[in-house]
Amino acid sequence: MSSLGQMVFYSDFDDFNVWKEALQHCLPELEIVHSTAVTHPEKVHYALVWKPPQGFFARFDNLKLVINLGAGVDSLVGRPDLPDLPITRLSDPNMARMMAGYVLFAVLRYAREIPYFEQAQQEPAWSYRHPRSPEDVHVGVLGLGELGAYAATELVRQGFTVHGWSRSQKEIEGVCCSYGTAALPAFLGQCETIVVMLPLTPETRGLLDEHHLNLLPRGANIINVSRGEVIVEDALINALKTGQIGQATLDVFTKEPLPLDSPLWAMQQVLITPHLASVALPLSSSPQIVDNVLRICGGKPVLHQIEVMRGY
Amino acid sequence: MSSLGQMVFYSDFDDFNVWKEALQHCLPELEIVHSTAVTHPEKVHYALVWKPPQGFFARFDNLKLVINLGAGVDSLVGRPDLPDLPITRLSDPNMARMMAGYVLFAVLRYAREIPYFEQAQQEPAWSYRHPRSPEDVHVGVLGLGELGAYAATELVRQGFTVHGWSRSQKEIEGVCCSYGTAALPAFLGQCETIVVMLPLTPETRGLLDEHHLNLLPRGANIINVSRGEVIVEDALINALKTGQIGQATLDVFTKEPLPLDSPLWAMQQVLITPHLASVALPLSSSPQIVDNVLRICGGKPVLHQIEVMRGY
Repeated sequence: MSSLGQMVFYSDFDDFNVWKEALQHCLPELEIVHSTAVTHPEKVHYALVWKPPQGFFARFDNLKLVINLGAGVDSLVGRPDLPDLPITRLSDPNMARMMAGYVLFAVLRYAREIPYFEQAQQEPAWSYRHPRSPEDVHVGVLGLGELGAYAATELVRQGFTVHGWSRSQKEIEGVCCSYGTAALPAFLGQCETIVVMLPLTPETRGLLDEHHLNLLPRGANIINVSRGEVIVEDALINALKTGQIGQATLDVFTKEPLPLDSPLWAMQQVLITPHLASVALPLSSSPQIVDNVLRICGGKPVLHQIEVMRGY
Repeated sequence: MSSLGQMVFYSDFDDFNVWKEALQHCLPELEIVHSTAVTHPEKVHYALVWKPPQGFFARFDNLKLVINLGAGVDSLVGRPDLPDLPITRLSDPNMARMMAGYVLFAVLRYAREIPYFEQAQQEPAWSYRHPRSPEDVHVGVLGLGELGAYAATELVRQGFTVHGWSRSQKEIEGVCCSYGTAALPAFLGQCETIVVMLPLTPETRGLLDEHHLNLLPRGANIINVSRGEVIVEDALINALKTGQIGQATLDVFTKEPLPLDSPLWAMQQVLITPHLASVALPLSSSPQIVDNVLRICGGKPVLHQIEVMRGY
């Protein structure tokens, strides 16, 4: 069934062989080729890619579909070399669960005052602090797309008082939802911990600037698992220095890898992870990739197509 | 309605006024008195206590019910001065949730390799490690009572492969359950992280000794939220030194507060918290306390009564 054509794979982060095996398990006829091993670019009909180099798509004249190997497509949509084809992203509940797991870890760590006890252990001191009831802990989730909504629901399950903010109106059981620019100040003012889960778009770039960071209660905690550029990094650094922001868990940064001269590295009140809050999962995402390949073959519209103009 | 009698309160950890308010909200006729303010001990019919001093009960001749202000009753059942009365413990889903929150935090921290990234931040280094799929992470829950079963279910929800072990046969959806002494070695051998949630009884005291710790895969992680005495602390310290145990999150210890000369304090691979994985919650536990008071008044059997001989 060579009519399917080939799929080219590119990622600096993901394991080609694991993806190849998972995809071929779903669709044995699909030939998956690493971008360095393509001998007949005209045979390539699909591209499964994460941040391919500029000019990557030029040699594939018969490309029919681009699949972003992840949920966030901001690195793809702004490219001048993006072909005029359907672009899809992964929409995998298991990715949402993995992201929510990271968020749960980070929020529970603050709610249970783990950094305080780590500090006490350094001294060392047995420094008892009676835990707060979770309903007294107000957590805000900024961005209620698939990933944000999933994480917010898991936070509700822990008993936290959860506030949600999004661009457009959303309803999530147990979450106090607000939306639109006018509602943002009130949302920020009531959250001791906020979790940034917005997609990066022209509207969200730099949204959390000095002004908005100052609207949070003094000493608030920030967890960023979306994109570094949603927060003005210099404003965040400054707010961490002044104590306006008490603590931060940062998985994403304006520039990645985070430059070694960034003051964030040395801040005791900051936990840095190298952009891995969630990753594409071969076993659970392969069926939807294969489904879209078959849709293209059958002339049907693909699922999880992104709107390039909107940015996600 | 003075026929209800008084309730005496004792705890070095819990806030008397918060408990008094929560209980009186449920049953305004109930008079709650702090143990230091009792003027007529003969009027005291109920004792709501956490680790009261030896001899505490002697002056209360008309006591009808002892309520342990917590889930674990090991500190109460072994006492020589325990009156021959119904003893109840708290059984509150919100306490189970709080405990599960701590367990989730600790398991996610290991599953997502946070200590590794904290180390990288010290250098500093952007040291990417691709996250593992949660189903590849095998977590074992030792003890499947109310608290253990709840935590195991939450771990299943995160996608981990969860094994459970208990004294008697249990079935929990999504958990691979085994039971009895003969099954313990196989259980231990397959868990990269174990969570100790057993009650402390004569049977579980010192259960995790050198022999059993050696049955875990090399470098396994231990999370203990039950009682320190379930693990032979010297054996644990030794296993941490040799690397047989890779990391530990310890909320409980053989002696509390943990003595400042314990080698555990200085171990980088150990996270110490001062016995607060879960605490009694006034709002959610007061209704069941009041319910038992009314049952005593009505001559009915109380709920959540402990079997002193069995130890829990």
